[in-house]
Amino acid sequence: MHIEIYDTTLRDGAQGEGVNFSLEDKVLIARRLDAMGFDYVEGGYPLSNPKDAEFFQRLVAEPLKNAKTCAFGMTRRKGIAAADDPGMKALIESQAPVVTIVGKTSEFHVREVLQVSLEENLAMIGDTIAYLVSEGREVIYDAEHFFDGWKLNPEYAAKTIQAAADAGAIRVVMCDTNGGSLPEEVAELTRAAAAAVEVPLGIHTHNDCELAVANALASVDAGATHVQGTINGLGERCGNADLISVVANLALKKKKGYKMLGGGDSQADALEHLTELSGYVYEIANMLRRGAQAFVGPSAFAHKGGMHVHAINRVAESYEHIPPESVGNARRILVSELSGRSNIIAMTTKLNLQEDKALMDAVLKEVVDRENEGYQYEAAEASFALLVRKLARAFTPHFELVKYHVTTESRGGSPLTEATVKLLVHDPEGEDTVEHRVAEGDGPVNALDGALRKALKGRFPQLAEMQLVDYKVRVINSEAATAASVRVVIESRDADGETWGTVGVDENVIQASWQALVDSIEYKLCKEEGAGGGGQG
Amino acid sequence: MHIEIYDTTLRDGAQGEGVNFSLEDKVLIARRLDAMGFDYVEGGYPLSNPKDAEFFQRLVAEPLKNAKTCAFGMTRRKGIAAADDPGMKALIESQAPVVTIVGKTSEFHVREVLQVSLEENLAMIGDTIAYLVSEGREVIYDAEHFFDGWKLNPEYAAKTIQAAADAGAIRVVMCDTNGGSLPEEVAELTRAAAAAVEVPLGIHTHNDCELAVANALASVDAGATHVQGTINGLGERCGNADLISVVANLALKKKKGYKMLGGGDSQADALEHLTELSGYVYEIANMLRRGAQAFVGPSAFAHKGGMHVHAINRVAESYEHIPPESVGNARRILVSELSGRSNIIAMTTKLNLQEDKALMDAVLKEVVDRENEGYQYEAAEASFALLVRKLARAFTPHFELVKYHVTTESRGGSPLTEATVKLLVHDPEGEDTVEHRVAEGDGPVNALDGALRKALKGRFPQLAEMQLVDYKVRVINSEAATAASVRVVIESRDADGETWGTVGVDENVIQASWQALVDSIEYKLCKEEGAGGGGQG
Repeated sequence: MHIEIYDTTLRDGAQGEGVNFSLEDKVLIARRLDAMGFDYVEGGYPLSNPKDAEFFQRLVAEPLKNAKTCAFGMTRRKGIAAADDPGMKALIESQAPVVTIVGKTSEFHVREVLQVSLEENLAMIGDTIAYLVSEGREVIYDAEHFFDGWKLNPEYAAKTIQAAADAGAIRVVMCDTNGGSLPEEVAELTRAAAAAVEVPLGIHTHNDCELAVANALASVDAGATHVQGTINGLGERCGNADLISVVANLALKKKKGYKMLGGGDSQADALEHLTELSGYVYEIANMLRRGAQAFVGPSAFAHKGGMHVHAINRVAESYEHIPPESVGNARRILVSELSGRSNIIAMTTKLNLQEDKALMDAVLKEVVDRENEGYQYEAAEASFALLVRKLARAFTPHFELVKYHVTTESRGGSPLTEATVKLLVHDPEGEDTVEHRVAEGDGPVNALDGALRKALKGRFPQLAEMQLVDYKVRVINSEAATAASVRVVIESRDADGETWGTVGVDENVIQASWQALVDSIEYKLCKEEGAGGGGQG
Repeated sequence: MHIEIYDTTLRDGAQGEGVNFSLEDKVLIARRLDAMGFDYVEGGYPLSNPKDAEFFQRLVAEPLKNAKTCAFGMTRRKGIAAADDPGMKALIESQAPVVTIVGKTSEFHVREVLQVSLEENLAMIGDTIAYLVSEGREVIYDAEHFFDGWKLNPEYAAKTIQAAADAGAIRVVMCDTNGGSLPEEVAELTRAAAAAVEVPLGIHTHNDCELAVANALASVDAGATHVQGTINGLGERCGNADLISVVANLALKKKKGYKMLGGGDSQADALEHLTELSGYVYEIANMLRRGAQAFVGPSAFAHKGGMHVHAINRVAESYEHIPPESVGNARRILVSELSGRSNIIAMTTKLNLQEDKALMDAVLKEVVDRENEGYQYEAAEASFALLVRKLARAFTPHFELVKYHVTTESRGGSPLTEATVKLLVHDPEGEDTVEHRVAEGDGPVNALDGALRKALKGRFPQLAEMQLVDYKVRVINSEAATAASVRVVIESRDADGETWGTVGVDENVIQASWQALVDSIEYKLCKEEGAGGGGQG
């Protein structure tokens, strides 16, 4: 059974709090979804803002290869002909081959929100779809508040979807607009809808009860063959059904032979790119990844509990419901006070340090102490690697701080920032040298980084190969606000694409950043000596 | 039907990546859960680390009022008597009235992980429970990998829970340890377990398929009367079932008369504190709240789409599945390019500015422009209120920057930070004055805040009433790392408890922080003049 996957990340997903896509963002995401075999990509609401209208022009100039582009709109306004409605004009002008029209299913919404007669609403649905079909468009009908409306007045709800089907809609999509329905209700009313119309049914769910994915699966098991949702579950309020979880569950967990995203090898290939897709959309949307996200989160296959890690080392599948690789994710072993000796052994083995009980004890104690100060090594494996090497007396610093000095001044306009760094740079073969350099920067950390690199590049030219790719600041005991300790995590990337995280903690964000900068550079230099390891690439 | 709620935030929740509870944290959370009517609070694994052992001593000294304290442990080691097992000793020494024992259900895990005979595993379950019962403890049995184990070998799985029941366990809890089960499987095997043992059944689910809540609900509908989970769904990998969603769904959505958390008024009261509980646990765990979290997230009842907001203003329930107040949450109207005129009107009405079309257009355009620069007003309503007042020409600055200067220096030890601020302070009644002050601080923003307050306190003593309570930094275009733009959001709180958010964006974190600091203070001063509004209290 083929299940159509309809993505509305660019329209319903963009309604999510904190989600803002530029025109370029939207085009990039649409092409990525097209390449992965999605059946439909909804690009936006042409009438709502110029950006969405322009998006469709971009896709006319360079169409998607396989996915059908959908433009979203509402049923015509009351009391006018569809042809005279500005919304219809915008939809036609978008030149999108598929138009998705949302209409009212619920008697309550027809009366209270739309404020038209029940008959006029049926006419608005029928006229709108018939007009768009006459203009050569394929029309998908989104039945807003389908479940709430059906529970309130089943006869009228059935009439609304019958009006859509009679007017030529190719799909009738049952929307749980408020996200308040339960799986058993969704299954029952999916069967009821199937009895009311011949047209293939779709399901569109929201996560207000934390049941969006369960509701989508329940509807498919009850006969729906089209699923609408968003990547990473982006969307208004609690978000839409996360298509990543929907697809992974339908393909990997359900034993009913559902096929999607092209099926066969193309489906398997798409599944192996789900983690990449998730990260890509977060990056483009400029949002942080959600660690605990099902299937694709950085923590989804991360093992922390000592007992579990111990088992993992013996039997991989013993604490994993699927192989991480099947969705493009990877297993991670975390470092924490809870994880006990077996994690430390796993990490230190990774660092090619032979098992050494005294060292294990020292590392474990140090990690616990530092975690209590606010350090976290779970996203800073490079700092952890250096910590282990220090405790193993297998580390010699390549340079030492004499002093740094950072100033930022503004006279109303944009500020000037300058940093000076004075270092003692070691040279095992020759003389230690003192380097004292100054740099300007866009901000204090950028200026410090600049001065630090100037001071080191003569002795360590390979530092030119690495760059900082992310910089995060987190207040630890936020009660004290700007006087609180802060944790800085810096992510660096090498020429070969390896990335590593380092951490610094201090009351002073400059000092915490300095610690993370120094760890990042020392890690790179150790790595060159073939003794780094523990990267996160 | 009474459903028991069993919280394991302090044990299974603490296995989550990035979750670290101090001893004090654990005691605070346990007492809060106790006050809300939770039936069981699992405190930890006494054998695993001293912190957990100490936790139980704290609760012996001052016991919980209603909830039963549970200590977690494993079945005895192979080949020894339960009485000789160090784990048993630690559990007895914890003096917890209830002991939760996890044991193996799956033939695969018995052979591959535990590496004992199937018979020895049954003996380990029976001996352990019988011993703890003989020591006067109530024993809850967690059947690890129950669903996977039953699917593999139903006869053996049944024997393991029968061994637990025969030995005197008061509950048999079916654990979906790997989080890989589907609701229909959970329902079916719950009925199978009910046929195999007389003991009341519990359900313990994980969110690896984004189905933890659906699985818990399916099990309860099939006969389970005890639910284990964590607050906010904290837990290893993708987390445990979020008890907040479980409780809200059972109490508010299911029409089956489930009673929990004391039932009646006590249940309704607990529900109205769910949002507070969620925020409290995040704060203590030092984690950011998840905006889209079902029921209790800051975005759960936030409306952004123009059409929706328009409807909300007419019919509140039209786009809400429950009243936000029923779970202690609140409706929010967001500001965004997508939301159109109706949102802006809603906000400006809130600011007591009469509807003014030209102003609406100006605000809408300015918001769109600034959102493109990286500003976000969704968490910074105070900055938005000031923006609207500026565009309405209803704002006169109380002071102007002449210059600021911030320096941070380290000579290896902890750094020194100093800020100087020179302001022109306005006085409508009298002369403008120039204030030039200096302050030291734990960091640059703290020092700037100190100097700014020194410069203003003479003219505006009321500033002593407000404090900064949170400070967040977010890199916007993180590709450019330390040279990227950063968004700073500062949350401030007034003496009366009102809190407000302000935002600043710049390539320089100092300048972005300065913008947010100035907005925070100007908002407070406007508020004093009875013209602020738009706070987030």
